Amino acid sequence: MMEGSAYARLTERFRRRALIGDALGILDWDQATTMPEGSADGRAEQIATLSVIRHELMVAPGVGESIGQAEVDLGDASPDDWRLGNLREMKRAHLLAAAVPSDLVAATARANAACEVRWRSARAENDFAGLLPALREVLNLIQQTAAARAEALSLAPYDALLEEYEAGTRMVTLDPLFDRLATHLPDVLLRIIERQNAQPAPVRPEGPFDIAAQRDLAAELMQALGFDFDRGRLDVSHHPFCGGATGDVRITTRYNEDDFTESLMGVLHETGHALYEAGLPDNWRFQPVGAALGMAIHESQSLLVEMQVSRSRPFLSFALPRMQASFGGRGPAWDVDNLYRLYTRVEPGFIRVDADEVTYPLHIILRYRLERAMLSGDLDLADLPGAWNDTMSELVGITPPEDRLGCLQDIHWPSGSFGYFPTYTLGAMAAAQFFSAAKRAMPGIEADIAAGRLAPLLSWLRTNVHGQASRHTADALLTRATGEPLNPDIFLDHLEARYLGDG
Amino acid sequence: MMEGSAYARLTERFRRRALIGDALGILDWDQATTMPEGSADGRAEQIATLSVIRHELMVAPGVGESIGQAEVDLGDASPDDWRLGNLREMKRAHLLAAAVPSDLVAATARANAACEVRWRSARAENDFAGLLPALREVLNLIQQTAAARAEALSLAPYDALLEEYEAGTRMVTLDPLFDRLATHLPDVLLRIIERQNAQPAPVRPEGPFDIAAQRDLAAELMQALGFDFDRGRLDVSHHPFCGGATGDVRITTRYNEDDFTESLMGVLHETGHALYEAGLPDNWRFQPVGAALGMAIHESQSLLVEMQVSRSRPFLSFALPRMQASFGGRGPAWDVDNLYRLYTRVEPGFIRVDADEVTYPLHIILRYRLERAMLSGDLDLADLPGAWNDTMSELVGITPPEDRLGCLQDIHWPSGSFGYFPTYTLGAMAAAQFFSAAKRAMPGIEADIAAGRLAPLLSWLRTNVHGQASRHTADALLTRATGEPLNPDIFLDHLEARYLGDG
Repeated sequence: MMEGSAYARLTERFRRRALIGDALGILDWDQATTMPEGSADGRAEQIATLSVIRHELMVAPGVGESIGQAEVDLGDASPDDWRLGNLREMKRAHLLAAAVPSDLVAATARANAACEVRWRSARAENDFAGLLPALREVLNLIQQTAAARAEALSLAPYDALLEEYEAGTRMVTLDPLFDRLATHLPDVLLRIIERQNAQPAPVRPEGPFDIAAQRDLAAELMQALGFDFDRGRLDVSHHPFCGGATGDVRITTRYNEDDFTESLMGVLHETGHALYEAGLPDNWRFQPVGAALGMAIHESQSLLVEMQVSRSRPFLSFALPRMQASFGGRGPAWDVDNLYRLYTRVEPGFIRVDADEVTYPLHIILRYRLERAMLSGDLDLADLPGAWNDTMSELVGITPPEDRLGCLQDIHWPSGSFGYFPTYTLGAMAAAQFFSAAKRAMPGIEADIAAGRLAPLLSWLRTNVHGQASRHTADALLTRATGEPLNPDIFLDHLEARYLGDG
Repeated sequence: MMEGSAYARLTERFRRRALIGDALGILDWDQATTMPEGSADGRAEQIATLSVIRHELMVAPGVGESIGQAEVDLGDASPDDWRLGNLREMKRAHLLAAAVPSDLVAATARANAACEVRWRSARAENDFAGLLPALREVLNLIQQTAAARAEALSLAPYDALLEEYEAGTRMVTLDPLFDRLATHLPDVLLRIIERQNAQPAPVRPEGPFDIAAQRDLAAELMQALGFDFDRGRLDVSHHPFCGGATGDVRITTRYNEDDFTESLMGVLHETGHALYEAGLPDNWRFQPVGAALGMAIHESQSLLVEMQVSRSRPFLSFALPRMQASFGGRGPAWDVDNLYRLYTRVEPGFIRVDADEVTYPLHIILRYRLERAMLSGDLDLADLPGAWNDTMSELVGITPPEDRLGCLQDIHWPSGSFGYFPTYTLGAMAAAQFFSAAKRAMPGIEADIAAGRLAPLLSWLRTNVHGQASRHTADALLTRATGEPLNPDIFLDHLEARYLGDG
């Protein structure tokens, strides 16, 4: 493993890291879809063992020195050289891992696991007080982790957490983006509701919808979008996700016999993630530069497929006859205009995962504000429920009647994920921007979609996003693909056109 | 990882090794049952990576010294102390791994994989000449491995290969056992055939047999035997096996609509393996002493459940009404005596995996003789087909008309497994010996089995075999459980009673 140049040695090390990650991806998938319930303990041990080995690879003696040497050795490389991106991602992974002492890593893993367990019952029992001690411990440790990373990376503590999920994201760039959304969206929301109320309500297709037929329809639309079942799967799990390994992309869903679109739109969302993974460059597989760029760009791909494409009128024109054939659908509900209004219905609610694309960013901005305040200590955890309800009322205009519809709804904080939430809305904005650029580049793309010709869209995404992997930073990727860095106006224009224009 | 006493450090290292092995168990299972076909390349890389990490754990600097130190530290331990068995197994694993240089390990893995691929087409095309070059390379490398291990372990080369599959097995003990079988079985076989020919042939139940009903029946009988579906699974794969991980035991089968017993007897065989794995002691999980003892004892557990129990008249009395309920079976085929004669039918044939329990050892003895001769160089590979056919004719009395029914039938040699075959017959003999001791200890056990009370049998196996794990050598385990070391007469007596006595 230790032959050749510093860079060559690093590629061997990171190749091993990626393959351990792939093995973990299959173990996670199996746990969620297949594993017998009584086998959870052993699985936790397997996952912990591989995670520790992967962490050791990053913090082993000499890794930092090899990176320094490789930076010198590649000093003359052209800026287009993929090896530079590889080295950038290697350095980031190494710094993030090496910044945190092993005993803090271990303590965090234990505290997060314990708090997750506590959270499941606390949410069910609407018992925030019961969660508080475990959550305090998680926050205490995440504050230590943030401080350690901040020091190593010369970043503010919250930025040091963001860095793990989407490299280069900083509060200083998030603030104006989110301020712009927070200023505009509440008003946009009111106008949309007003307009919706002036129209007849859409009609919901009536079930029951056979599960096997739902599965076949989902697979048909996945394949139309470009999903390859020879290198991927569709299965069932309690919480839908996209996982698996390099060249083995597995998405999951959960079927509801009364409403086939719940599962279908979820599948299309995960298909967006899966197409990204499947479209990463073969030449760089198992290397950091060949991996997906970060959670925001990943979410942009799922939201592009779900929100920009699948809930659009052209895609629904293509999908409707297939839906009807699957379920023998007849009557006023089975009409493109009706389905389009149904699938773009805006309804402010308490629960983030059920939110429409207009309200969704407000859920995120709330969490962004509160997690920053918790991390800095400005918000004491005991005051979280009140702060949550106040912010919800301010941003969305509704107040949760109980904590399970408020600050107890998400697993992120109990499981130690601080700094993750912003990537959802960064992804929504990037999705609008990518799709807008694709439409500009291919003026016939919506007619193609309506006709079921989805290959041109996939081809554009492969060239401009998937095939670029982690070669550039997110801003550079966006600029190369769309002509400018992230611009929230494109997302706001999309909402304006879809919900207040001609749709 | 490196705190505490030498022994404590070793337990940490071996715990990690076991958990990597468990992860590999799930990856292997997934590959055989679930993985999309196009994902094979990536899976091979994952498995190779984890295998290398596991091997590195065994050959890391200081492991040998730690074992030496632990032997000193545990010098006063009572002979009953499980730690001594743990240390014995640690030492064996370390010596086996450290004996072989890494470049030979890597070359062997490549040559075996290439030869396996070549074998698949060579078997299909009955083309031994086409396999020969790849098989020469495999044999060349296994000779080097055997020589390296022989030197490190102070054993004869073939014994050094046996040592990997069943510790302590030596040619000097195999020779008299196999000679006894080779002397007696051909005659026993003739007498059985003669007796069978004097009776009416058994009637085969007529299908088709619904696959879902086959699956349900298999699961019902598995549960009756003590299989826990909360910590295990039953799935479909091309080649049936028992795999998975600690506390997550997964068996597979392949259904045939025309013959339900093909799958059912296979499932019961794998259930024997699974019960062993599931019955290993929780206190010692992830340690070498807590693992199954070796391939011979493992096979004894599958053959005990399949051959000794499931094909017996008492078990068939219990199973018959369940079989009839599953398939609506009526008529002369659905009779205990008929089924018993059907499932104990002896028919010499060319193919080992289809062989009855009387002929089976002859298939093994043939392979034992030939692989020893190949390893020593006494048999040139070009002469293998002729030597195979001559030995088959001598031992079983039939001559394969083509190599795919002869020396091309098994994957073992092409995949580099020399020294594995004897464990099948050691297992068959041990199965007879264990079951004979269980009947002696519990005179009512066959009545229990006929009544579907299988808990006493499982309890005896847990106490005397499963729960002992690798605490003792195989000979000591057999002696403690049955009163004597392996005795081939018990197996011969079983054949005599079943096939030539009152059954």
